[in-house]
Amino acid sequence: MDFSGRNIMSIQDFSRDELEHIFKVASDMEKFVKTGSDILKNKILANLFFEPSTRTRLSFVSAMYRLGGKVLGFDDPKMSSKAKGETLVDTIRVIESYADAIVIRHTIEGSVTLATEYSNVPIINAGSGTLGHPTQAMLDLFSILREKNTIDGLTIGILGDLKYGRTVKSLAYGLANYDVQLVFVAPEQLRMRRDVLEDLSEEGTSIREVSDLDEVISDLDVLYVTRIQEERFPDPSEYEKVKGYFCINRRTLKPAKDDLIVFHPLPRVGEISTDVDSTKHARYFQQSSYGLLVRMALLSLILS
Amino acid sequence: MDFSGRNIMSIQDFSRDELEHIFKVASDMEKFVKTGSDILKNKILANLFFEPSTRTRLSFVSAMYRLGGKVLGFDDPKMSSKAKGETLVDTIRVIESYADAIVIRHTIEGSVTLATEYSNVPIINAGSGTLGHPTQAMLDLFSILREKNTIDGLTIGILGDLKYGRTVKSLAYGLANYDVQLVFVAPEQLRMRRDVLEDLSEEGTSIREVSDLDEVISDLDVLYVTRIQEERFPDPSEYEKVKGYFCINRRTLKPAKDDLIVFHPLPRVGEISTDVDSTKHARYFQQSSYGLLVRMALLSLILS
Amino acid sequence: MDFSGRNIMSIQDFSRDELEHIFKVASDMEKFVKTGSDILKNKILANLFFEPSTRTRLSFVSAMYRLGGKVLGFDDPKMSSKAKGETLVDTIRVIESYADAIVIRHTIEGSVTLATEYSNVPIINAGSGTLGHPTQAMLDLFSILREKNTIDGLTIGILGDLKYGRTVKSLAYGLANYDVQLVFVAPEQLRMRRDVLEDLSEEGTSIREVSDLDEVISDLDVLYVTRIQEERFPDPSEYEKVKGYFCINRRTLKPAKDDLIVFHPLPRVGEISTDVDSTKHARYFQQSSYGLLVRMALLSLILS
Repeated sequence: MDFSGRNIMSIQDFSRDELEHIFKVASDMEKFVKTGSDILKNKILANLFFEPSTRTRLSFVSAMYRLGGKVLGFDDPKMSSKAKGETLVDTIRVIESYADAIVIRHTIEGSVTLATEYSNVPIINAGSGTLGHPTQAMLDLFSILREKNTIDGLTIGILGDLKYGRTVKSLAYGLANYDVQLVFVAPEQLRMRRDVLEDLSEEGTSIREVSDLDEVISDLDVLYVTRIQEERFPDPSEYEKVKGYFCINRRTLKPAKDDLIVFHPLPRVGEISTDVDSTKHARYFQQSSYGLLVRMALLSLILS
Repeated sequence: MDFSGRNIMSIQDFSRDELEHIFKVASDMEKFVKTGSDILKNKILANLFFEPSTRTRLSFVSAMYRLGGKVLGFDDPKMSSKAKGETLVDTIRVIESYADAIVIRHTIEGSVTLATEYSNVPIINAGSGTLGHPTQAMLDLFSILREKNTIDGLTIGILGDLKYGRTVKSLAYGLANYDVQLVFVAPEQLRMRRDVLEDLSEEGTSIREVSDLDEVISDLDVLYVTRIQEERFPDPSEYEKVKGYFCINRRTLKPAKDDLIVFHPLPRVGEISTDVDSTKHARYFQQSSYGLLVRMALLSLILS
Repeated sequence: MDFSGRNIMSIQDFSRDELEHIFKVASDMEKFVKTGSDILKNKILANLFFEPSTRTRLSFVSAMYRLGGKVLGFDDPKMSSKAKGETLVDTIRVIESYADAIVIRHTIEGSVTLATEYSNVPIINAGSGTLGHPTQAMLDLFSILREKNTIDGLTIGILGDLKYGRTVKSLAYGLANYDVQLVFVAPEQLRMRRDVLEDLSEEGTSIREVSDLDEVISDLDVLYVTRIQEERFPDPSEYEKVKGYFCINRRTLKPAKDDLIVFHPLPRVGEISTDVDSTKHARYFQQSSYGLLVRMALLSLILS
């Protein structure tokens, strides 16, 4: 399977076979985390973050470093030429001279797609607009696989802002490759968008929608909690209404199966109480370390 | 020719012979862009940007990386000790312990010159005040040379803000080393400064000044378009008057010679319509990749 | 002496023997500044600066580079996930997957201590709250040792903001390991805190407090001047009162011993006149280069 030079725009561009190949390579990467490697010795990654990011940005940096590569870029568009009014396409056509692959997080999803048409080097979408965050979805799937040894057959709850969150949408599409039961848990005003539900149904994915976690907690094998992202809400008063709607704590998890595992893309701001951190359910910090492996796998696949 | 340890402050410090040596080395660098190199393996470059920059800053980073070196620095003076009131000379006297060469972009040209008197490591001026941007001028000359195989004998139009733009001034001084016909195209209030015109005349450079591109477009071998930089204007209302004065598009270029080539230091904000990008005239993205080669050449020359 | 994996939180955690071991290793590092080294080839340092820093941050970067290592992180918390409301403990638990050691500068000292309880990789405190800045204290001691060949027996004046400055407190505790005479010079409202004075007395350190440098300048072997840090004052009007209280110049130093040496952690903003820079007393720029050696020593000790 050849990923060399491939753009990573959307989780929907990847078949189950391709995902499983990536996951196999990701597991192989584990040894390099401690020892390092020279696989990407003379390669340069450009990290272009037009929106704030800690973990996504730094995990790409760490992934390149662990493979012997180098990273340049910016994390603050105010200081860049975007401040002088440059279009993303122009930025890309310049940066492609300086780097062998480009990671972009941008507010406008269309501009990232457009950029791929002009770039001579592969582009990785690191979360753009409200649409997609494919490498997050891949690491989420990989995390489930590593912690449960399977994805097929699981009942997976996804809770939080299902309307504006880009993480959950990509994850749901990714899970549609497997034989899972999805349970979407959200307040009325943050329910998963209708078009996504229709896409998933077409894929044959079994879906249940509820607004109360208590109703379904005991059925779940995996609970995926997301942050309510204030910055995605067009109307701040709408945010105020749902803020703090969900806070998972030890009491919430009492009716859960013994082997329920809880994920969160992080950062959390109150959606999961820290009293959950030391329970057997918590897996969100492991999840973040799996992210490193998946990004190492992707970089090694598209750059070699 | 020994450039080891040399400061790069102004294009006027370089003779034609020296420039041609740099261009020869720049062409030799092309092979390292793909393969990498260890020429500067244990060298550290400090990138000190007190003003925003994408392409200049990142092209120096990429140049060091392609030669095996490392880069530290800052691109946001707000977060640095300048915010605590430190002088540039003090900053330099500290940073010279941490790095083998220093690239500076600063608002005040005099402070960069002063810094060279105190620094034990070579300093590269990456655009300071309204005066000079020597590495941009070098890459502009190199771009013409690569695309035309010669600079002598060409008729070269330079269009845009000739009064405040630091790029055009350095370019004009650089071109004065060659046997060229310069055509300055600018609205009345943005004409090239008198002292620069006099310097160029003394060098024997043939100069023509017009305010209308149409008048001269058919004569040009090279058209160098620059951004009208809002941030350089002391008076915003003056900027509003000339904003959008020039917008090169396919129609503008219709009377041009078949082999006219168009450059722009980028970023552009409307001075060249994107409909020009796919014409045979457009060379501004190549120009930016030549910049990488020139900076690799300079770094390898002063650091080895 | 094994420092592998050790946290560096406070100068008070280090015995005189341990400090001297670090200083010996620091001197050994000198050769690598010019030649480079591969000692930390596959190691990654995370630099997490929640407060502005130039020299501390960049000297850690340079130290890693000189030893063959790599650095990731941020210097502007506004662009990081802290802007999304993440706690420091959560940030650390993510970053520890990406790096082999973590350097933190943070406003809240307690949060850094708390972070060490969760981190699987060593953490270096690079200045947190008003309490401590241990690596600065180590480099200050090392600087005295290198310039005086001894610390025992010296009379050392420490001048400036002794109340809010974190540098001086750590330095004083570090000096308490040696047989020195400390002279604290500060205006009434910026005198050293009582609890620190008591700690030092218990250690048997001889202390004298004055508000006028002239009174003691001729007794001193070392004068350590610190910045009055506006940002540490709870009340701006209190700052206005003491601003410019001290400005060391050639005249101030006239009664000094011939071999008095003057240090300053830098940046300075008027506490030492530039007319002192060229005197035989000035050592503050050397001090900053010794900082690089001490940080190389610490990184090599805790990471190997």
